[in-house]
Amino acid sequence: MWKNIRPRIPIPRTLNHVSKKQYATSSTCVELPRDVKELPIPSDSTVFSMIQPTGEFHLGNYLGALQTWKQLNDYKKADTRAVFGVADLHALTIPKRNNVETFRNLRINSIAGLLSIGIDPNNCIVNWQSSVGGLHCELFWILSCLMPMGYLNRMTQWKAKSKSDELNSCELGLFSYPVLQAADILLYKATHVPVGEDQRQHLEMCRFIAEKFNSFYNCNALPLPKTLLTPTRKIFSLTDPTKKMSKSSGDIMSLIYINDEPSVIREKIMKAKTDSLFNEKFKFDPNRRQGVSNLINIVSGLQSRTIEDVENDIAQFTSFKELKVYVADIVIDSLTEPKKLYNQYLKETEYLLEIITKGSERAREISEANLKEIKKIVGL
Amino acid sequence: MWKNIRPRIPIPRTLNHVSKKQYATSSTCVELPRDVKELPIPSDSTVFSMIQPTGEFHLGNYLGALQTWKQLNDYKKADTRAVFGVADLHALTIPKRNNVETFRNLRINSIAGLLSIGIDPNNCIVNWQSSVGGLHCELFWILSCLMPMGYLNRMTQWKAKSKSDELNSCELGLFSYPVLQAADILLYKATHVPVGEDQRQHLEMCRFIAEKFNSFYNCNALPLPKTLLTPTRKIFSLTDPTKKMSKSSGDIMSLIYINDEPSVIREKIMKAKTDSLFNEKFKFDPNRRQGVSNLINIVSGLQSRTIEDVENDIAQFTSFKELKVYVADIVIDSLTEPKKLYNQYLKETEYLLEIITKGSERAREISEANLKEIKKIVGL
Repeated sequence: MWKNIRPRIPIPRTLNHVSKKQYATSSTCVELPRDVKELPIPSDSTVFSMIQPTGEFHLGNYLGALQTWKQLNDYKKADTRAVFGVADLHALTIPKRNNVETFRNLRINSIAGLLSIGIDPNNCIVNWQSSVGGLHCELFWILSCLMPMGYLNRMTQWKAKSKSDELNSCELGLFSYPVLQAADILLYKATHVPVGEDQRQHLEMCRFIAEKFNSFYNCNALPLPKTLLTPTRKIFSLTDPTKKMSKSSGDIMSLIYINDEPSVIREKIMKAKTDSLFNEKFKFDPNRRQGVSNLINIVSGLQSRTIEDVENDIAQFTSFKELKVYVADIVIDSLTEPKKLYNQYLKETEYLLEIITKGSERAREISEANLKEIKKIVGL
Repeated sequence: MWKNIRPRIPIPRTLNHVSKKQYATSSTCVELPRDVKELPIPSDSTVFSMIQPTGEFHLGNYLGALQTWKQLNDYKKADTRAVFGVADLHALTIPKRNNVETFRNLRINSIAGLLSIGIDPNNCIVNWQSSVGGLHCELFWILSCLMPMGYLNRMTQWKAKSKSDELNSCELGLFSYPVLQAADILLYKATHVPVGEDQRQHLEMCRFIAEKFNSFYNCNALPLPKTLLTPTRKIFSLTDPTKKMSKSSGDIMSLIYINDEPSVIREKIMKAKTDSLFNEKFKFDPNRRQGVSNLINIVSGLQSRTIEDVENDIAQFTSFKELKVYVADIVIDSLTEPKKLYNQYLKETEYLLEIITKGSERAREISEANLKEIKKIVGL
């Protein structure tokens, strides 16, 4: 068994503004509420998710995934396993991955990022996908042999990515990406997978392939994982609020990094694109007022408050400047602690590597046993 | 280090009719001669090949691949590594693989088959691909991220297999098959790969992806493996000599298993389809006389003699019956020893498992070090 890791830097233990509430569920998809202590997850579950180390984490990552991970970290039952990984094998599909020095730094910085937002490596498994990469990839191959080409061809993300380039020059890894994702999840027999709206289709595919495996080999080895939809709506670019906040835009002013200096955050928000409806009250109205709605959504996410609550809070503002100063203050305030911790962790490389080692040991324990069972079923 | 395995059953040490000859070579492809003791393989090479455990081995397998493996086993230099594997992960692409009991038996029987034709597990590494499956599959993923979809779409075998079915219902494993094959080869940094003509294109693809890896990551980690073309031309079905001898035909009379009883072999050959050119001498003429040419080719392969030599040997025959009796005698004679050994090995399951264990240990030694180097290069 693995031993607990002595924390060098204290880990923030709670989220603000959390209270018990009702939540929407279906058989395959659960929409997580913003502010819930009692999670819709039964005993003895396995929660699993991964994030790509494509760069420093930004507000879109934070509100789209990481804040939910933190929530799960804090309020999961003691007998529920949680695995939060850095998907470095998936990151081999990004274009500039042969800048190897940067790639290496991003992998380690991602672990610092996870800890800085409050993931506790003694409570969750934190690791690199590639630390147990052989296990992920062997299941990936087994599932590949059951995955119809036609199904993969219909994946929205593949269609979007392959459209921008010539289809034929796209790489196989980009096409088979969701099958590796399914292998990641099923390797741990995960029961609940927190993802953003854009990953919903891949989770459906994961259930499809798990079901196909069970039926083809006449077994019940693979549980069908439920989708846990993160509560915050998509975060958009500050400079073009019709587009998702993303590093790939190349516009430094369009996104806020968790590690940005307060003055930089303030400048970016003050210059954020809004609209020319000077005489209207500030309302969440993503069709008519994309920029303003994005700012409201950011505050709502950071404060774990409803959109309506935020609308009430900002009802007295009459100028864009007032609104932006208010939003900037909240963003700066919310990111102060993660930023401080992040920079502390970055100096503790050995500690980070220790966490990965321990995390990988635990990940291997679980996944090796599962893969062994799966290989036995298929006759290997 | 691994210790030698005490042979329970003597291993046949030499091939018949072997003498030194000239051979055709090019920079990427070497055509192996039938009868050569001095192989066109320099010191410190790594020879690698695998065969699918899709059923008992038949004459097509034997003359297409296994006989060449035996030749390499016997005449390779002492410092040349040879890895001969059973591609059980690849076999997950065959349709009836969920008959798991059969699948398991075929895997172990394949090892008995390799030993029975004279592969010496103390001289070569003999193992199951899946015994070190994680290593193969992790490199498979790394290469997938460099492999253009368009290139894979042009693979002849994929086009043939996907044409017979609806393209969209074909599985990803079938499409990405050649990339796993490339990973198998490159994982061992193989320098020479003996294959039949039908695998030539996949070997070209393997060199393409090795070159792309080296150039993308600005390194020289992956050697470009040479194709060793097996000397015997393709063996055709006995009942329809326009088609390759293959289990998938479903016609038991169309192929000769190494394990067939002599009376069965005789019956199959006596009933082999020939032609109606009763007044002509028996000549190798695959355009006009497919059946006869196939029989000549079989004899030529089994005896390691040229087509012309065989033509001379059979010049006096005036009837199909005479020819077929002659061919049947040679086939029965050639397969007597392998058949006897095969049935002995089948009873020695523990010994076979010991060989796989030792083979896998050695395979892991080599491939783990190579994968570690490759992962370091890509930043993992």
